[in-house]
Amino acid sequence: MSEINDATMTVAALKAQVQAFARARDWEQFHAPKNLSMALAAEAGELMEHFLWSTPAESHAAAQLPAKRAEIAAELADIVIYAIEFANITQLDLASAITTKLAANEKKYPVEKARGNSAKYTEL
Amino acid sequence: MSEINDATMTVAALKAQVQAFARARDWEQFHAPKNLSMALAAEAGELMEHFLWSTPAESHAAAQLPAKRAEIAAELADIVIYAIEFANITQLDLASAITTKLAANEKKYPVEKARGNSAKYTEL
Amino acid sequence: MSEINDATMTVAALKAQVQAFARARDWEQFHAPKNLSMALAAEAGELMEHFLWSTPAESHAAAQLPAKRAEIAAELADIVIYAIEFANITQLDLASAITTKLAANEKKYPVEKARGNSAKYTEL
Amino acid sequence: MSEINDATMTVAALKAQVQAFARARDWEQFHAPKNLSMALAAEAGELMEHFLWSTPAESHAAAQLPAKRAEIAAELADIVIYAIEFANITQLDLASAITTKLAANEKKYPVEKARGNSAKYTEL
Repeated sequence: MSEINDATMTVAALKAQVQAFARARDWEQFHAPKNLSMALAAEAGELMEHFLWSTPAESHAAAQLPAKRAEIAAELADIVIYAIEFANITQLDLASAITTKLAANEKKYPVEKARGNSAKYTEL
Repeated sequence: MSEINDATMTVAALKAQVQAFARARDWEQFHAPKNLSMALAAEAGELMEHFLWSTPAESHAAAQLPAKRAEIAAELADIVIYAIEFANITQLDLASAITTKLAANEKKYPVEKARGNSAKYTEL
Repeated sequence: MSEINDATMTVAALKAQVQAFARARDWEQFHAPKNLSMALAAEAGELMEHFLWSTPAESHAAAQLPAKRAEIAAELADIVIYAIEFANITQLDLASAITTKLAANEKKYPVEKARGNSAKYTEL
Repeated sequence: MSEINDATMTVAALKAQVQAFARARDWEQFHAPKNLSMALAAEAGELMEHFLWSTPAESHAAAQLPAKRAEIAAELADIVIYAIEFANITQLDLASAITTKLAANEKKYPVEKARGNSAKYTEL
């Protein structure tokens, strides 16, 4: 079997892994979109907890600390697992949704206006 | 070019797309892990807003409404785009992180104990 | 000293309590609005964790369970403590902000249109 | 009538205001603890959106900008309104919960150990 990493795994393969986990436990009954959106937001809160009192610059360093790195990776994984399960339950294609959203953002944030500027598109 | 969907897209291809978008705008300077974790959590809040007052059962139906579906897909895409960019900036491999996390969850939630049970592992 | 409860405590008294706690620890240096908004959102995530997989009806019962009640009260307190400290640091008057917001909501959600209806004002 | 501000308003008076608003619209039926925790977290996300790309230092300045200040006050009010309504619906006394939580935090974060230190109590 080939190594598991971002270069080899398709989104569909990740979706199948997450779905198999949920189905083996008969957990799809709990996975209403409402509930999954809450779980996802709660996990996003846990990721933030690693960076509450640091500056943005310090947060770059924190994410590289060996002692923190595995925890941060696990929090990020929790978020993406719930996002994937949300897509499973609602039959959404994530790659299409992301491509569509990036295309919309291209229009909201044209390169010449947005370069080096963090302002919201409504303020550009 | 082959169609863009979850079956054809690897995680690495999505990461490259998101990175190109950020770099074209010179936005990586704003993408500290702290800031990306906030943006991700804020987008998770926007996804929840679609389901605040519905029951879990009603949220299944809401996610299938044509009028809502594109908006929900866009919110989910925003979340995953920030998760991907977080992985880009911190050099984390998402597929490995997810596989590692699912393996840890296998131990926390053995099938025979967790089946049909939504209790947290600390209460199983 | 009179009993401490919602009938006797003013918002200003709560603000003073929270400010004294932060100042005794020289913590105001960490309490930038950005950081406090993250801490508040992270605590909101912890409150949600008590209700992820329950229905709305079940969540009413959960909030009355003696075993859960103290934990839920503590999570709610964390949220309000950060909200109060946010008001302290930014010199906002909470009672005025709430009264102003409820007045704005009166216009967005007139009783005759909003009664028994959970739709957002943009859909009323 | 005396002026409405933090010095004159008790928590109980705020609770009564929020309860009257909800009852006039027959909205308590939607205000399950689960739903209110989601609404609160979603509003916390909206508060964060004002500070996503700024540094902590810049966020102090942003909170003082006349153009931003009213919006930030409104977001903070939304959060506290949902926290108050959560307390209304679950019959929790907020002032007691806050006082109890601050007392617990006194033990977790003794002044001599915590002074000038943002580390979590588990790391002190």
